[in-house]
Amino acid sequence: MTVDLSSLRIVNGTVLTMTADSQPIGDGIVCADGGLISYAGPADAAPEPSGERTIDASDCVVLPGLVNAHTHLAMTLFRGYADDMALQTWLEDWIWPAEMRLTPDDVYWGSLLGTCEMLRAGVTCFNDMYHMPEQTVRAAIDGGIRACPSGVLLGFLPNAQELFEEAIAFVGELRREAHPRVHPMLAPHAIYTCPDELLVKVGEAAANLEVPIHIHLSETASEVQDSYDDRGQSPVEHLNSLGLLDLPVLAVHCVHLSKNDIAILAEKQTGIAHCPSSNMKLASGFAPVTALLAAGAVVGLGTDGCASNNNLDLLEEVHLAALLEKGYSGNPTALPAPLALTMATRLSARALGLSDVIGTLEPGKHADIIIVDMTGVHLQPPRDPVSHLVYAARSADVITTIVGGEVVMDDGEILTVDEAEIITRATECADHLLLG
Amino acid sequence: MTVDLSSLRIVNGTVLTMTADSQPIGDGIVCADGGLISYAGPADAAPEPSGERTIDASDCVVLPGLVNAHTHLAMTLFRGYADDMALQTWLEDWIWPAEMRLTPDDVYWGSLLGTCEMLRAGVTCFNDMYHMPEQTVRAAIDGGIRACPSGVLLGFLPNAQELFEEAIAFVGELRREAHPRVHPMLAPHAIYTCPDELLVKVGEAAANLEVPIHIHLSETASEVQDSYDDRGQSPVEHLNSLGLLDLPVLAVHCVHLSKNDIAILAEKQTGIAHCPSSNMKLASGFAPVTALLAAGAVVGLGTDGCASNNNLDLLEEVHLAALLEKGYSGNPTALPAPLALTMATRLSARALGLSDVIGTLEPGKHADIIIVDMTGVHLQPPRDPVSHLVYAARSADVITTIVGGEVVMDDGEILTVDEAEIITRATECADHLLLG
Repeated sequence: MTVDLSSLRIVNGTVLTMTADSQPIGDGIVCADGGLISYAGPADAAPEPSGERTIDASDCVVLPGLVNAHTHLAMTLFRGYADDMALQTWLEDWIWPAEMRLTPDDVYWGSLLGTCEMLRAGVTCFNDMYHMPEQTVRAAIDGGIRACPSGVLLGFLPNAQELFEEAIAFVGELRREAHPRVHPMLAPHAIYTCPDELLVKVGEAAANLEVPIHIHLSETASEVQDSYDDRGQSPVEHLNSLGLLDLPVLAVHCVHLSKNDIAILAEKQTGIAHCPSSNMKLASGFAPVTALLAAGAVVGLGTDGCASNNNLDLLEEVHLAALLEKGYSGNPTALPAPLALTMATRLSARALGLSDVIGTLEPGKHADIIIVDMTGVHLQPPRDPVSHLVYAARSADVITTIVGGEVVMDDGEILTVDEAEIITRATECADHLLLG
Repeated sequence: MTVDLSSLRIVNGTVLTMTADSQPIGDGIVCADGGLISYAGPADAAPEPSGERTIDASDCVVLPGLVNAHTHLAMTLFRGYADDMALQTWLEDWIWPAEMRLTPDDVYWGSLLGTCEMLRAGVTCFNDMYHMPEQTVRAAIDGGIRACPSGVLLGFLPNAQELFEEAIAFVGELRREAHPRVHPMLAPHAIYTCPDELLVKVGEAAANLEVPIHIHLSETASEVQDSYDDRGQSPVEHLNSLGLLDLPVLAVHCVHLSKNDIAILAEKQTGIAHCPSSNMKLASGFAPVTALLAAGAVVGLGTDGCASNNNLDLLEEVHLAALLEKGYSGNPTALPAPLALTMATRLSARALGLSDVIGTLEPGKHADIIIVDMTGVHLQPPRDPVSHLVYAARSADVITTIVGGEVVMDDGEILTVDEAEIITRATECADHLLLG
């Protein structure tokens, strides 16, 4: 019997399918075939082996790959470049001047650097918003990760119309190519950087192209106050009044929300990317996660870009989200561990409009799977694997990452690209950007 | 020239001495002799090699070992046992009934488990408060870590007087033994669990024995409200009125403080252990760290016990402290990276009364040193090492841990004790405690 490398059989692990109301499966098996999951369940009900490649997950937990619902990937190049400063200083004096020098190579190598970091940390899909997104797509395809790419539409730029047309063309081309790991979006930056006319045009294009919209929304108190001052509406109400929330939307941050905002976001099933590290680092505020979830809203988790985090470690965001929500709400039972982990998997996938594609281990979904080693001394004694994953594990415990059935990181090694070269090239890019 | 194993010479690394106003030393050398640091500075001013054991720290940062200013070490046995619940439920229904079954073996193996976890995470000293502290001391000595042990004095126990006398005897014996890595304290649990008479007696004993006092203080809003209701004073004012703050005190948490409390703690130079994870997980509140530091108070960092964290990862607390303070204060410039790292090193040492012993890399201090590998993809591009340590590094990046000049963890291996045996024994202990 020869080994069929396009098929996988992960055995001996504790399986978390992350489907609703699922419990850990102590002796579980996950099978993948042709890039899709064919079985995820107890060993005693699994199909017979048929020559697949077998992966031993003894003493490990097997779960869906983590889904990073918001980042600006190539900003890895700015990691540690500008910390501990106010948002406007950070943007206007540090980030934007450096970004004026961005080349396609910078975006490509910066995105590959971030791809390696995410694959090592068990992140198998990321939702991106950045300049020159065709380079991000190249990096994602080369690196073997799943991507939701989008450019950034900024209405105040002199070439805003041109960028809008480019974005339409970009999304159209990706839709035609239909790469199984690339799911494009359209990304107007925010309501305060895009005039209504542009937002409406983006909405029409998104509907025509059948892609979601990716937008920052209600991140800071001043954004919300300005919106009330300008039009007597919150940012959420404004986006809704333009009809955009009738479409699939991924709204990032959603920190400063009224009760009516929460009701709208829940009713419209708008996807939300909660980014706790970024919200804390930039002192934006605390998102009302419990209230959103209680209202039935779809809240996923994101890292934001490396300039405001400063890493792409989504497992850390899971941990932070669970801790911060308790501290912020004053309720130690808020956001329990299973719900926090659900946010980074099933809910992030749903927030990105990828419910049918990823986010759980279920037959027919794409085989985006991670294996986490639970033998570390910091994970002893063995106990509820979900508690340990959320409150005690570190992303360094991820030992195997699989995207679309392909093993892309195994035992500390990236198998798709030359990580050493990427580090060298990305460092050169960062030097030219920041010293240029 | 034979190699002198009692002497070390760490070369080629970037050295952070963590002394006041120090800058990273790009090509630095740290030398240790007889357990003490003999040199820490630039390579070009270092003494000539003289046959010491040489450690190559290329592409690494060399800094003082992290100082965990508050934990209950053997509570590693309760990791993941009781999450996401209210403090009283957690204590009364889960923790205390299990602790009724504690044996000396449980405390020993649980403490060794935590020792291995801390050494791997670059923690070289911990301040402990737990039952049967003689077992914690045994574990610390066997594991090769520095410890500030203390039992727990609870005034409401029927044998409170006996426990007090035992604690005095325990501290007296440790003072006579004068182990270079053991620095005992006396630990009345809190003002709400110890009557004034006991607190005063502890103060007298601490003064006689010349050891600091370790106490929980102003952790929850209800503790503070009860104190005002009972005596018209805050917990800080009360402890001060009893004269205890005129002695060296390590006060844990200090979450709910009035302006007067902050002024008292700063004036008295009371050591404070800030425990951000625990305060969030138990929804205790947000400690006013910026206000304390601005007033000149001595604020270190602690993990608290594994039942309310659920790990002993002090580098994570550094990261969390820096993020949380920004989010809580609404000021993105609050608690910048260098100050956060200082809290876990120099300030924690000072808070424990160990300023002359540890906390910085300076000649004459004990050689508690860690080496952090900065080559991980999540730490690229190379930039300010302090920013990377605080915002992007993980404790898994610590590759070498040295306590009192002895290499106790190197390249992922604990060199002092049999970690596999410890995991087995600690798991057995946890099973008997939680199922017993």
